[in-house]
Amino acid sequence: MNSSLQPFNQSMTKCLLFILPLFALASAANSAFITLQYKQQIDGVTNCSQVALLTAQSLNYCYNSIRYTNNTSNTYSSGCSGAYNTTTYSSNVCTNSSTYLYYTTATSYNPAPSGSDLVQMVFANGQCSGQPVWTQISYGVSSAGTTSACQPTTLNGFTTLSVMGNSSQVRFVNQAAGNIYSVWALLVLLTFSLFIQVHPDSDFPIQNLPYGIFSRNTHEEPRVGVAIGDFILDLSVIADAGFFGGELAHHSRVFHQKSLNEFMALGRPAWREARAIIMKLLSADEPALRDHSELRFKAFSPISECILYIPANIGDYTDFYSSKEHASNIGTMWRGKDNALMPNWLHIPIGYHGRSSSVVVSGTPIRRPQGQTRPNENEPPVHVTCRVLDFEVETAFFVGPGNNMGDPINMDKAEEHIFGMVLMNDWSGDPRSHFTRSSEAARDIQKWEYQPLGPFNGKNFGTTISPWVVTLEALEPFRVQQPKQDPTPLKYLVDEGASSYDIHLRASVQTEKSLKPQVVSNTNFKHLYWTMKQQLVHHTSGGCNLRSGDLLASGTISGPTPDSYGSLTEKTWGGRDSWKVEEVNEERKYLLDGDTVIIEGHCQGEGYRIGFGKCAGKVVPATVKQIINAPLS
Amino acid sequence: MNSSLQPFNQSMTKCLLFILPLFALASAANSAFITLQYKQQIDGVTNCSQVALLTAQSLNYCYNSIRYTNNTSNTYSSGCSGAYNTTTYSSNVCTNSSTYLYYTTATSYNPAPSGSDLVQMVFANGQCSGQPVWTQISYGVSSAGTTSACQPTTLNGFTTLSVMGNSSQVRFVNQAAGNIYSVWALLVLLTFSLFIQVHPDSDFPIQNLPYGIFSRNTHEEPRVGVAIGDFILDLSVIADAGFFGGELAHHSRVFHQKSLNEFMALGRPAWREARAIIMKLLSADEPALRDHSELRFKAFSPISECILYIPANIGDYTDFYSSKEHASNIGTMWRGKDNALMPNWLHIPIGYHGRSSSVVVSGTPIRRPQGQTRPNENEPPVHVTCRVLDFEVETAFFVGPGNNMGDPINMDKAEEHIFGMVLMNDWSGDPRSHFTRSSEAARDIQKWEYQPLGPFNGKNFGTTISPWVVTLEALEPFRVQQPKQDPTPLKYLVDEGASSYDIHLRASVQTEKSLKPQVVSNTNFKHLYWTMKQQLVHHTSGGCNLRSGDLLASGTISGPTPDSYGSLTEKTWGGRDSWKVEEVNEERKYLLDGDTVIIEGHCQGEGYRIGFGKCAGKVVPATVKQIINAPLS
Repeated sequence: MNSSLQPFNQSMTKCLLFILPLFALASAANSAFITLQYKQQIDGVTNCSQVALLTAQSLNYCYNSIRYTNNTSNTYSSGCSGAYNTTTYSSNVCTNSSTYLYYTTATSYNPAPSGSDLVQMVFANGQCSGQPVWTQISYGVSSAGTTSACQPTTLNGFTTLSVMGNSSQVRFVNQAAGNIYSVWALLVLLTFSLFIQVHPDSDFPIQNLPYGIFSRNTHEEPRVGVAIGDFILDLSVIADAGFFGGELAHHSRVFHQKSLNEFMALGRPAWREARAIIMKLLSADEPALRDHSELRFKAFSPISECILYIPANIGDYTDFYSSKEHASNIGTMWRGKDNALMPNWLHIPIGYHGRSSSVVVSGTPIRRPQGQTRPNENEPPVHVTCRVLDFEVETAFFVGPGNNMGDPINMDKAEEHIFGMVLMNDWSGDPRSHFTRSSEAARDIQKWEYQPLGPFNGKNFGTTISPWVVTLEALEPFRVQQPKQDPTPLKYLVDEGASSYDIHLRASVQTEKSLKPQVVSNTNFKHLYWTMKQQLVHHTSGGCNLRSGDLLASGTISGPTPDSYGSLTEKTWGGRDSWKVEEVNEERKYLLDGDTVIIEGHCQGEGYRIGFGKCAGKVVPATVKQIINAPLS
Repeated sequence: MNSSLQPFNQSMTKCLLFILPLFALASAANSAFITLQYKQQIDGVTNCSQVALLTAQSLNYCYNSIRYTNNTSNTYSSGCSGAYNTTTYSSNVCTNSSTYLYYTTATSYNPAPSGSDLVQMVFANGQCSGQPVWTQISYGVSSAGTTSACQPTTLNGFTTLSVMGNSSQVRFVNQAAGNIYSVWALLVLLTFSLFIQVHPDSDFPIQNLPYGIFSRNTHEEPRVGVAIGDFILDLSVIADAGFFGGELAHHSRVFHQKSLNEFMALGRPAWREARAIIMKLLSADEPALRDHSELRFKAFSPISECILYIPANIGDYTDFYSSKEHASNIGTMWRGKDNALMPNWLHIPIGYHGRSSSVVVSGTPIRRPQGQTRPNENEPPVHVTCRVLDFEVETAFFVGPGNNMGDPINMDKAEEHIFGMVLMNDWSGDPRSHFTRSSEAARDIQKWEYQPLGPFNGKNFGTTISPWVVTLEALEPFRVQQPKQDPTPLKYLVDEGASSYDIHLRASVQTEKSLKPQVVSNTNFKHLYWTMKQQLVHHTSGGCNLRSGDLLASGTISGPTPDSYGSLTEKTWGGRDSWKVEEVNEERKYLLDGDTVIIEGHCQGEGYRIGFGKCAGKVVPATVKQIINAPLS
């Protein structure tokens, strides 16, 4: 490999690190390999030293893969239809007249394709953030196992090749770009013997089936899918194939929507019906999907090749403050231990209206905010870049059917209005302070933006949620009793059932120097004092109307011990202490630019787990310069 | 007239009072009259004394009118195509076998219809809240002026009659209800000589052209219209007819939407283009619409016959607190005169995130909320019906093009992001107190729900806005300098232009006993300390993204004197005093059930006014009984 490609490889490694750790990879041992070689001509190169840079740019724009669906095996344990892995190598040739880059992508599959299987090449130009730089793509077909010819067909803007004979030269159209390429296919098929199955550590086994919104590229319309292992089952395809019978048959358009709102609005009987149908379709005993290769091919996409969107059109977002440990920690820091909890805290699930527009899906960068503060009471306020930037480990739930204005929801009906849950990082910026939250500072902060109407710009620059909505049905086996409430709440707020869930939550931070995320908090949803049902009942008790797709968040979830505190400000006790990032010998009081915060969550069953996937976001620097430090004179 | 119809007449009078005062009626002098007589059979009457009650019920459900569009006159001064007025008389006949009610509706028009004009009968069943009770409708045609025959055609579910000859008996289908009626038409046409024009006191002259969302019945799709005099010009019809050329031609679908969001997103050049085209189409010199009777007939609908919807899909709603007089009044009541304004108030346009779902259009009833409070610190809190219910006179503006997350909007670009303004009543419930806001009570209130995260259930049970969005273009002649800001704000917040507007605002309350609304406040938008541009700039300064259709409200607008205070709590100084409702010798500390609050606003030009229409809502009782007064023992 040419040493000038080092920058490219570094860049690609980062890119893969970003994409792949989100999804568990199936074992590659004993699986089939398909190797794709292709050539990229780079125009406008006048100096061969430019090649490495251009290569890095081009591969940051686009990535490519091969998909394979086997239509003969019936031994899948959980409906998975193919494993997926990618390794990319490259070399380049630079001449006076033109420059070519040659890549080889090796992809492992199990079982190996046979003569009648479909092999799909995916040129993911749709995911390019800039103009695709591919000017020519060449590949050839040969074989070290089954040998097959290539016959191009098209599917959803991608080019698909049926593996049917010996290598041949074909022309095909990349529909997304509208260009015609000459291609030579090289498929090296090697057969191994293991079967694919959902790994016991996967977040998305058959027991979970969380809902999300996805597309395979930016040209496709986003639609409803359900996560299973490393794949997404496209429910719009399942609906079009007529698998949703009964009442759902009249509502199958809900799976073609670009948000889950309409599905959420249908209510629990419809959700149960959908879940039962999807479970049956995915079971190894059910031939409808298993033995229908074309349908299976349309219906399954690897999660890692898809774009995941925010799962609902969030009409209103409310953030509660329901962890007694968190409220006590913050209260102790700000007002001292004797006044830690405000007098209303044990009587009301305190909450405030948040900013819907600032709720983003996992992976979206979070820009460090700026804001106004007055560090010195004897001087004018200043407008500065926030130094006290923090994460907050939260969960949130989506409202299913809403209520009419003026019609409060009673406790016995509350659960019928809860569709499912996501992880949340409610980023918290405190632009009002240059310095850390010492008790000295806190008094000044408290006086500034918050008074008298609550959080505003300190809480509206970004809130990250995970893309998969885990339903209450999937969480049911993990239902536990919430903490005892003393004093007993007013009658309308009494929740006599076991209404909490045993959900392990973990927050990690990956700094720019560290190779892997460092755990900063291990906490649990079950610590929360107020239940989701109580939050919902209190929210509507004055007549406020909730709508399908509204998001109600828990507030920071802290446990009783420092290793379970759900924010850095608690971990470092207002910046008094530091959190040590062991691997790289760094320390943090609050987040620095370049830090990526990853929140994960799961319920542990016997031999399986109900996972939430990841809720991740990287802090990027404030781009706008400090505007001014003092008023105009 | 039979005296047993007295209840019906009273009811109808109320109904008309509710509908008609919203829109200035054109002068009826010297105009044409069309008189429609029809007969209603009431089934199920076994006792003639039931008649009056049933009559009142039926006319509360439905109302009827006749529309007339003249296609020959070219003398309209402002594009108006017909005046509109309705008077209803009735009598009844009750026999043993059946009961009939006879009504006569006289409608005035100018110029009078001629032989080739269209006369449209509107049976507005679409607006009925219950099952229509019309079982038979009869009318006959005769004439005292021009005589014409009736030939039924149908249009959008309504039945239209061409006036072409002598009276005849016809059958026609009411498409909305699917019923066939036998009819006899009686049209009495009397010619007078005055022309129709927009009255100088109309809120909607040619200089205004506010945008709204409307439909003529519940079966039609809501769409974009512009108010002109007593009519709505249907912009979806104008778009389909190809009148929107230039850049707008590519975006004409925006006028078919059920919200203004897409039009708002187009930005000021498109808004200016649309305004210029509409002005030209409505001008007396322009024949395109004026001389095209069928098109005109489709394009114009009387406002009073239409349903008006909330004008935008409000993604996020933010309420500011920008009146220095209001903040000082509240601060004085709560903390005393020396600490009236909080230290941050002169440096930041204080605001909080509101609840989008609770924003409703004028006319929607507001239910009195319930909530938790703790009137006595030594006793447990209680959950009670709110006694301290107040209105707040506000205005609000809609965001045009939004900004990306992390991209603050600078002051010099701020106005490009403001589409237009509406009136707002931000109903305020204080369920936390049985008693009035005395200084004693205030301390308790302050401790309860607000701390530490701001308003919640006290501000999310209902916020009313007016249906017509008045654009900044229409307000431009009324631009004035905002109050001097001392201290000068930080540089990013300095608004050096004249950025306020001289908008007269009036709040009135009509109690159940009073015959007409009683003015409680006369204030003005120009009193506001912080400008709309400053609110918008501060809101985005931390990186928060705004979206098209977001709503930013002013906060209560109070002037310097008690007659200009924008809420009852200021008017009665926290309930210490009372406001006297002169007409009926009642008094109010806060609002009672049955009170209707009406907010109006206008800019006064020379010979015309830019009006906002009305923002009205009636307080209805809390339907849910007090849940409990104490915790479970």
